[in-house]
Amino acid sequence: MEKKKRFAVILAGCGVFDGSEIHEAIMTLYAIMKNQGEYEIFAPDIEQHHVINHITGKEMNETRNVLIESSRIARGNINPISDFKAEDFDAVIFPGGFGVAKNLSDFAFQGENCTVNPGVEKVVRDMVKQSKPVGALCISPAIMAKILDKPELTIGQDEDTADLLENMGARHKKTGHGEVVIDEKYKLVTSPCYMLEANIMDIAEGTDAVVKEIINRL
Amino acid sequence: MEKKKRFAVILAGCGVFDGSEIHEAIMTLYAIMKNQGEYEIFAPDIEQHHVINHITGKEMNETRNVLIESSRIARGNINPISDFKAEDFDAVIFPGGFGVAKNLSDFAFQGENCTVNPGVEKVVRDMVKQSKPVGALCISPAIMAKILDKPELTIGQDEDTADLLENMGARHKKTGHGEVVIDEKYKLVTSPCYMLEANIMDIAEGTDAVVKEIINRL
Repeated sequence: MEKKKRFAVILAGCGVFDGSEIHEAIMTLYAIMKNQGEYEIFAPDIEQHHVINHITGKEMNETRNVLIESSRIARGNINPISDFKAEDFDAVIFPGGFGVAKNLSDFAFQGENCTVNPGVEKVVRDMVKQSKPVGALCISPAIMAKILDKPELTIGQDEDTADLLENMGARHKKTGHGEVVIDEKYKLVTSPCYMLEANIMDIAEGTDAVVKEIINRL
Repeated sequence: MEKKKRFAVILAGCGVFDGSEIHEAIMTLYAIMKNQGEYEIFAPDIEQHHVINHITGKEMNETRNVLIESSRIARGNINPISDFKAEDFDAVIFPGGFGVAKNLSDFAFQGENCTVNPGVEKVVRDMVKQSKPVGALCISPAIMAKILDKPELTIGQDEDTADLLENMGARHKKTGHGEVVIDEKYKLVTSPCYMLEANIMDIAEGTDAVVKEIINRL
């Protein structure tokens, strides 16, 4: 039997408005296993930028830790991103959610002038250096636009966001549900997911497409 | 085109150790849509019993609200369980997680002498009164054992838990991954999910089986 492909999945908290988008995260894990892969989950051990009440959209007077909240999605099986070693994995995937733009980077606040969490940046650089595929869903391509030199990618249809990414040097391609953009130089595989008006079926389609394209390049 | 079957999904927070099991919750939503259904999500507007750090398993010095935390899984689209009307739905499903035994009931602490949240009890009684199917995953059948008179159900293989349910009058059947027990009198459909040593593929199989058996009875 062929050895299972090993994926790292990087989380940013637990909830679309201040962490990882939960549907995207879970459907990523499901797509990996469905395509005969296995996964380990990582997140930075840092405070969340803030905590949002997901009903009202308002900030709550609380502090939460990205690693601890991400561990809810991981059922406790999670590692700090500082433990990540590129040689242990065949590929990495970043699900989306505002946490990517608030915790893994400050793209939500600084736009094209954003900075990226050093642990996250190291994961991407180390994988690219070893010619291993990187998947990025939803808003996660914003991080790739910052770290990589002129990557080709997609965040769906939103022109304002696409402009910000192009200002960082990225070449943006518009996409619909389940569509994938691949930068063959970096083996960077991106798909819009909830950056479009979407439902959980669309997310299943997008995550499955990303995992399949990654496995095709292993 | 046939009208879509309408499912209510009842959540208990966001995280296996103090709320709803997230994989089960998301795979339930996915199974509903995959089988041409649609869903609305509900949870009680009450404080969680406690907050657990999912890495260490230890209690945290925090208070969280079941409805607000459940809204993370629901992307904000959630209703208090007090708004639930059985006439609006064809079926209801309870995913599992310790929250079912800590927030929707106190089964985790009181065992066979547990009490069930009145809003949750009303949902089950109203659906059964209207001969509408009720799905219960993982530990959720414990609630059904308390509310209903001698239901046939499964929580998998755990004999201590099964004994507690039988002490409440339930008739327990052992099951493996993806297997379903159906009490035709109540149209109660149960499957073990993470009450067994399981992975997300097993959960996908179990939730899909439950949704299909429910639809077969509509």
